Amino acid sequence: MKVCELGEFGLIERLSEMIASQSRKPAFSDNRLLIGIGDDAAAWKSDSLIQLVTTDSLIEDIHFTLETATWEEIGWKSLAVNLSDIAGMGGLPRYALVSLGLPGDTEVDDITALYGGMIEISGEYEVAIIGGDTVSAPRVVINITVLGDNGSPDGPILTRSAALPGDVIAVTGTLGAAAGGFEMFRSDLSLGPEAAASLREACLRPHPRVTEGRILVENGIKAAMDISDGLVADLDHICRMSGVGARVEVDRVPVSSAVKECFPDRTLEFALSGGEDYELLFTAIPGNIDRVKAAASCPVNIIGDVIAGDIHKTILVDNTGSHVSLPGTGWDHFRTGRSQK
Amino acid sequence: MKVCELGEFGLIERLSEMIASQSRKPAFSDNRLLIGIGDDAAAWKSDSLIQLVTTDSLIEDIHFTLETATWEEIGWKSLAVNLSDIAGMGGLPRYALVSLGLPGDTEVDDITALYGGMIEISGEYEVAIIGGDTVSAPRVVINITVLGDNGSPDGPILTRSAALPGDVIAVTGTLGAAAGGFEMFRSDLSLGPEAAASLREACLRPHPRVTEGRILVENGIKAAMDISDGLVADLDHICRMSGVGARVEVDRVPVSSAVKECFPDRTLEFALSGGEDYELLFTAIPGNIDRVKAAASCPVNIIGDVIAGDIHKTILVDNTGSHVSLPGTGWDHFRTGRSQK
Repeated sequence: MKVCELGEFGLIERLSEMIASQSRKPAFSDNRLLIGIGDDAAAWKSDSLIQLVTTDSLIEDIHFTLETATWEEIGWKSLAVNLSDIAGMGGLPRYALVSLGLPGDTEVDDITALYGGMIEISGEYEVAIIGGDTVSAPRVVINITVLGDNGSPDGPILTRSAALPGDVIAVTGTLGAAAGGFEMFRSDLSLGPEAAASLREACLRPHPRVTEGRILVENGIKAAMDISDGLVADLDHICRMSGVGARVEVDRVPVSSAVKECFPDRTLEFALSGGEDYELLFTAIPGNIDRVKAAASCPVNIIGDVIAGDIHKTILVDNTGSHVSLPGTGWDHFRTGRSQK
Repeated sequence: MKVCELGEFGLIERLSEMIASQSRKPAFSDNRLLIGIGDDAAAWKSDSLIQLVTTDSLIEDIHFTLETATWEEIGWKSLAVNLSDIAGMGGLPRYALVSLGLPGDTEVDDITALYGGMIEISGEYEVAIIGGDTVSAPRVVINITVLGDNGSPDGPILTRSAALPGDVIAVTGTLGAAAGGFEMFRSDLSLGPEAAASLREACLRPHPRVTEGRILVENGIKAAMDISDGLVADLDHICRMSGVGARVEVDRVPVSSAVKECFPDRTLEFALSGGEDYELLFTAIPGNIDRVKAAASCPVNIIGDVIAGDIHKTILVDNTGSHVSLPGTGWDHFRTGRSQK
């Protein structure tokens, strides 16, 4: 059935039912939520917490293409990128609003599959979808807003502006696999099934580091962000906002094993400037990083250190301390024309 | 300069400066805001209030066209429709997040004009723009999320589900002018300058009834919403969500004088099903409506009453009580192809 046959209110009703059937599960029994989908706005009781809010748009043929991603994967990813922003603040995501722009001839089954992917990840992260908006559009446009908080009164949050000279720089997980997946799709490569599955997962079903963000907060980390534009581009953001510089030893940057296997000549390019890794990038005194390493269930690697001075960006060095340069340092939505992101 | 020449980060910086220069004004000195634009998410301290959030998307050539609206007007309206949702809950809007999807060849001056319109209305309503997202898109897509609250601890909110049999139904202001403006643009009509200006204003620079929403709350009103889909379609929403019916006496519906002057044969069609009026529709016992009338500086008119029963929709009657039918009862984004909204 086409969206235009079902109509706006029919579609909203269908999607509301999908969300309602999830919110009856115990993890979602949220007695703070007063009004969910169906009124002018959603409403909930707040307490004395720091509130967080983030929003991201994904647009067909710019951020995703139906040639390579399923509707479920698009739904998963569009919520994941927002959860990752909350993770980058060390917060707990609570509520999501979903705005869809859809061509009238979109199949209703496709949109319920899209919502299926959103509901799957919202279940995994215990986030409730509480509202949104559905409009007609020439191409599929997905805008998601996620609200969260800092978990406890007087609890701190992680910001991009708290890096200090003398801090070391660390990342969770490994980098480059999302860029590898993107390259696999773009060049239609035939890779081994295990590596292909791993690259696809990194590209289309990223797992935001919400738990790790909480571990950072609990272990005294102050400066962090999630890696979406690429390690170097994102570290440049921290440098600019903290008024510091950064030195990264490229050999210490952890690269995805699938990238090493499938793209041995491009590991550093993908890991340093590929983007969309949705890992956490953070800085702290070495003792605090050690505590994070001990607490986290994922790899945590030190990759460099924060330096004083006015350069406000990232310097790459090899293991002898010599400067290394790399082509491309991140993703600019307007300057480059890369698709399938 | 084109957006693709300035680049994503350049554009974000430019727009952040525009917003920052406003937020230095006294009305915006908000010591609850901890992190604005530039981090993974915006953050603020909450207190024990009911929090409200709403989101709306506007898409080029579906919701607006640059043939009739200026960029400033588009900016104004895209924030106005969200403020109106907060008004429909009786809340105070506080923060806005702006997500823009833009073709790379969009002129930067046009986007600063768009932001100019948003900043103008955000100043009038004391709302701070605290974040957002900017991506590449084939056509202009504007998604705005507005956060608000109920103004005071233990204060109530207005919902669509609180209408009771025996309530009377009332609206603020007059209806139909936005639909009249839309028709003026669509048919390229040459109207008198005063009427044309009034219809244009209704269509492109609506003034959300935030103050009036607060007056409703203060005077014991429980059931309300803003009129965006059209009076009858929106009253149907209240009927369905409250489990009641509604009877509207069509002769009592207040019609915009510009509509009466320019479209004498279509007054009821525009007023009952035109939509985008952004007035408030509410129900209450007659005594409370009288108090609202006394407190509000805009017209408040009783147009009918809430009735018991399972019909869950709106019945239209004339002043003899006979049923009246009308073609079209509102706007369905997918079923109809109306442009310029």
